[in-house]
Order: sequence, then C-alpha cells, then structure tokens
Amino acid sequence: MTLVQRTCAAVVPASRQVAMQAQARMDNKTKPRGSLGRLEELACRLASIYGTPDPALPTKAVVVMAADHGSAEEGVSAYPQEVTVQMVRNFAAGGAAINVLARLQHARVIVVDMGTKAPLDGLAQVRSHRLGAGTANFTRGPAMSREVAVRAVEFGIALAAELHETGVGLLAVGEMGIANTTASSAITAALLRQTPEQVTGRGTGVDDDRLRRKVWAVGQALEVNRPDSADPLDVLAKVGGFEIAGLAGVILGAAARKVPVVLDGFITGAAALVAVGLCPAVGEYLIASHRSAEPGHAFILRRLGLRPLLDLDMRLGEGTGAALALNLAEASLRLLREMATFEAAGVTDAGA
Amino acid sequence: MTLVQRTCAAVVPASRQVAMQAQARMDNKTKPRGSLGRLEELACRLASIYGTPDPALPTKAVVVMAADHGSAEEGVSAYPQEVTVQMVRNFAAGGAAINVLARLQHARVIVVDMGTKAPLDGLAQVRSHRLGAGTANFTRGPAMSREVAVRAVEFGIALAAELHETGVGLLAVGEMGIANTTASSAITAALLRQTPEQVTGRGTGVDDDRLRRKVWAVGQALEVNRPDSADPLDVLAKVGGFEIAGLAGVILGAAARKVPVVLDGFITGAAALVAVGLCPAVGEYLIASHRSAEPGHAFILRRLGLRPLLDLDMRLGEGTGAALALNLAEASLRLLREMATFEAAGVTDAGA
Repeated sequence: MTLVQRTCAAVVPASRQVAMQAQARMDNKTKPRGSLGRLEELACRLASIYGTPDPALPTKAVVVMAADHGSAEEGVSAYPQEVTVQMVRNFAAGGAAINVLARLQHARVIVVDMGTKAPLDGLAQVRSHRLGAGTANFTRGPAMSREVAVRAVEFGIALAAELHETGVGLLAVGEMGIANTTASSAITAALLRQTPEQVTGRGTGVDDDRLRRKVWAVGQALEVNRPDSADPLDVLAKVGGFEIAGLAGVILGAAARKVPVVLDGFITGAAALVAVGLCPAVGEYLIASHRSAEPGHAFILRRLGLRPLLDLDMRLGEGTGAALALNLAEASLRLLREMATFEAAGVTDAGA
Repeated sequence: MTLVQRTCAAVVPASRQVAMQAQARMDNKTKPRGSLGRLEELACRLASIYGTPDPALPTKAVVVMAADHGSAEEGVSAYPQEVTVQMVRNFAAGGAAINVLARLQHARVIVVDMGTKAPLDGLAQVRSHRLGAGTANFTRGPAMSREVAVRAVEFGIALAAELHETGVGLLAVGEMGIANTTASSAITAALLRQTPEQVTGRGTGVDDDRLRRKVWAVGQALEVNRPDSADPLDVLAKVGGFEIAGLAGVILGAAARKVPVVLDGFITGAAALVAVGLCPAVGEYLIASHRSAEPGHAFILRRLGLRPLLDLDMRLGEGTGAALALNLAEASLRLLREMATFEAAGVTDAGA
C-alpha cells in the first residue's frame, strides 16, 4: 500500500457513543438542556473525535501552505504574482492577519513554502517543501504531474503526523497563493460536477472583467485536462495547486491521527473535498469555521455536510476564519470540562 | 438635573471622522480592502467610540446582574424561582457558563444581587444592591415604583463609572433571573408597540402550556399597568425587573464614559432598549454579540439597528454570547494595531 492508502485506511469513524456520553455530561451542567446551542454540538463532536467524553484542552496550531499558480498569467487575480512570496515573508515576520489572530488564540503558525515562483531563501520561520516554481498554467495542460500531486499529499500527511507527535491536538488550516481561488473553483467544478459559472467568484475582489477571465480559465482547465471526477488525485494534479495538495494531505494525516481540522474558507474547503474524496471518513474530523463570500464554498459545505460557525463576510484566507473559530472550539471544550454540574453546584435541575 | 439626566447629557455621538481614519489604517494593512469583513467594521466602530484610530487594547469585564420576578408565580418558567439564588451562588463559585467563558477571554466577572427572593449573605464575590425580595407580580400591579426603578438605574450608572475608573474599557453585560424573559417581552411589547404574541418566546425552554401563560402574563401586565410607551422609566418600573433596570443604567453609564457595551441576547437587549429610549445616542456604543432564539430579540435588534456577530443557537443568557464576542472585539482591535502595512512589509498594494 502507498502512504496515501495506508493513511486513508487508518482513518476510523469518530465515536457516536462518546458523542452521546459527552452530551449527557453537557446535560448535567448548570444550564437548561441545549441552551449553549452550537457550542454543545461542537464540544460533543470534538469529544467524539478524541474518543473521550472528557477531552483535555488541545494544543493548537495553524498550518499555512503557500504556492504559486501558473494560471496567474491569465490575469485572474487583482494582485501580481509576487504577492505570494511577499506575503510569505510577511507571515515569517509575524505581520499578517493570520499571525495576529493565531497569537490571540495561542496557536503556533507553521508556514510551508510548497512552491512559490521565486525561491524563499533564508527564512528560518518558513519550512521549505518546494515542488517547483509554481504550478504550470492549467489552461494549457495539467498543473502538475500525478506523481508531484502525490508527493505534496504525502508531505502533508507527514507534517500532520509530526505535529501530532509534538503534541498538537487541534489544527487550523490556511493558505496563500495568488490565483488559488481559480484552482479551487476548478477542483470544485470537477469533483462536484458543477459549471465554472456556478463555482467561480471574485476571490480577493476582482472586477467583472477579471471574473470573466476566471470563469474562462476554469472552463478551459476542465476542457483541456478532462480531469476524472471519480479520481480526486487526477483532479488535484490536473487543476489543483501545490498548497491545495499539501493541505489535502494535512487533512488526511490529521484525521488518521484523530486530530480535528478547522477549515478556513473556499480554498481549504477544496482541499477537504479532495481529502474526503480519497477517504469519506475524513468528513467527521472537519469543522467549518466561517462562510466565505465565494459561491463555490456553499457547494463544498453542502457536500461535506458542514455548517460554518461564523459568518463575518470574510474573504482573506490565510486561515484567518479558522483561527477565530479556534476560540469557539476551546470555549466548547472548556464548558464541557469546567462547568459545574447541577449536583455539585446545588442547582435544581428542571430537566428543561 | 437628576443623575439619569446628567448621564444622558454626557453621552456624545461617536466620531465618524475617527471611524474613517481607522478604516484608512485598515485599508493600508497587508490584505485586500475589506477582506476582513465585519472585523474591520467592528474595529472601526470601537475606534470611533474610543475617539482614536489607534486604540489601546481595553481591559474587559462582564457585569452580571441578578434579581427575582414576582411574575414567576404565574408559572411562566420551567425552573423554580430558587434557581436564581442557586445560580448566583454558582457564579460566585466560578462554576457557571459565564465564568468559564469570561476566564477564557481574560475578563473579570462582576456579579450583582439587585434583589433575589431570598437574601444572599456572606458571598464576598457578589455585590449587594438589593431593591427588594424580587419585584411584585406585574400581572396585578406595577413591578416596582418609579423611584425604585430610578435607584436601580442610578446604581448601574455608578457601577459603570466605577469600572471605568478602575480601568475597564470594554464591557459585556449579562443577567440571571427566573421569569426575566417574560419581563423583557413586556418591555419590548410596550416600547416597540408590539403584541405579546409577537415578542414572547420559550425562554430557557418552556412547553406550549407555559408559553401560553407567558403570553397571557405579558398581556395582563400591559393591561393592568398601562405603561406609557413614550416614557421608558414608566415602562421599566411597571413591567421591568431590578436587574434589567440596573443593566439599563450600566449601559447608560458606560456610554457616558465612552466604554463600548457588548450586549448578550434578549434580556440585555430589553435593557438597551430602555437606555436608548432615555438617550438615543447610546445606540452608537452598543455591539450585538449573538442572535438569540427569542422572537422579541429580532424586534429589538431592528430597532437598535444592530446585526449580531454570532448566531450559535444560544439561549442561556448570563452574558455568555457577549463573552464569546469579546474575543472578536479583541481580534478586531489587534488586527488594527498589530498587522503590518503594505509599505512596512514590502507587499505590493493592488488597491483591490
């Protein structure tokens, strides 16, 4: 078996029994039944993933993967391609939105260069796992070979395993890559059999002209490469990106280690779509943080059966929505752990 | 002038100019314009309240006021009235949901007994400002005299001033009081001229029979007491509660000190409705944390022109939704303060 196959085989369904035990604990806390709403659901889901109704507070980390995209040369983004590398330097210096939000949630940020156009040398804070100087332009041929896509996924699996071994118990995922909403639209269109128009949006904020080019680029990528909807690795290789492939691996690897993954928006959603395509049981390990403004995100959420926790009109990426949701995840676990029971607090339980 | 009048006179409109300066700062941070969505709006609103585009990180506190309600004897709650006192003891011991969530956000909790049925003695963690052993049953006559309502509001004003003087710069509000959704429905019906049916819901989770009794109690309270919709203190006295009156004062006092107030759900919303009725400029100092399941809350939010940050199906009260939103408020301010600018980070600004 390959590493990807072995990892998929290691993903076991989360425990329904533990979820029920956790709900029973919640129901015994000093509050009306169900009155903490989605925080109760979240606590029980996390408990079911950890396999115990009394989970410890997990160490949190955010993995941000960056790469460039050949399709940027089609003018699909409002930003020049150099911005990918510039933003990775910003991540390394701690000045980006994800750095600020991760610090607030006491989460480490792991930045990975999966293949930016220009090499990033001498940045101790950035892990290098370069698969090339950006993907090829997928409007003319495959973004990468299947072999490279598999290497990216394998690297993500290994990174998740390493983080788990160093004590990380709750993972948020994010990304940076000029033109990566275009790749995510292509992945979503291919895997969910939607038209480019349905799943392509304005990304960081393109105008009508660039939106038309994005829709064209997605359509062209599907026509030129004919990705096989039933083969997630084929879709990933032909119309994906290095960072999306790496994140699909991180998600798979985390699920295999029983580490819940907090998704960010559209691009991490596309990575999750690939991971769930490879291994349906991964879906139980996913938490949707926020509702992205991208139209394709709604299709992904429906397919994954996820309802986001936040709806703050965010469309930045980097893992910013996921970082905010880490606070809700921690809140839910603390409520399960720290709230007094009716009996201990001497409060009458009306059973309501 | 009375203290209430002086306090209303001290509330000045938040600065639109500072809000624009803060947005200009946000637009210069390394992200596409507007891509942090409602966090950007929140940061700018907070800046406009503080009167500076570069506000310091505020010290946070949660004020939880508790009291009992005479209308509880009409069987409007699923919980016996003793639960108010039991929960105040739970707050004092640190075992309630609000304690857990406030700890997570590094916010102090100030618990105030505004008048529970049984006296709460010997709890050093609870401030006593008892106005009686609960309000009178407002289905038979006024809940309290106008004089007592004014005393409650004045106490709230003084508490907000004291907290401001001891360094608190961001206030969340919460409450505890069996039957206080019934009082909040009556206040909402009176001030917004709605029918009892429109603004009365299931509170902590009552059944159909109790819901009918609640609707009846609200209607009866309005018919027996004929509160004057144009006189918020009259409404407060006749169909309010001690804790609601105290919170209206806290909100007024905080606004007069330029301290933003994060509202919780329906009951704190009713208190805000009274405060805004007394002084319309208070509205600019309010932040809606979450959307409560109570139907009356939607009417209040519309009147206050507020859109909640969270929608997590919560219906607990205590300030729990407000405490969660403190994290978003802090996040928004940290983004404004800590994110690098395009220039400082050497990132190309496409102006998108």
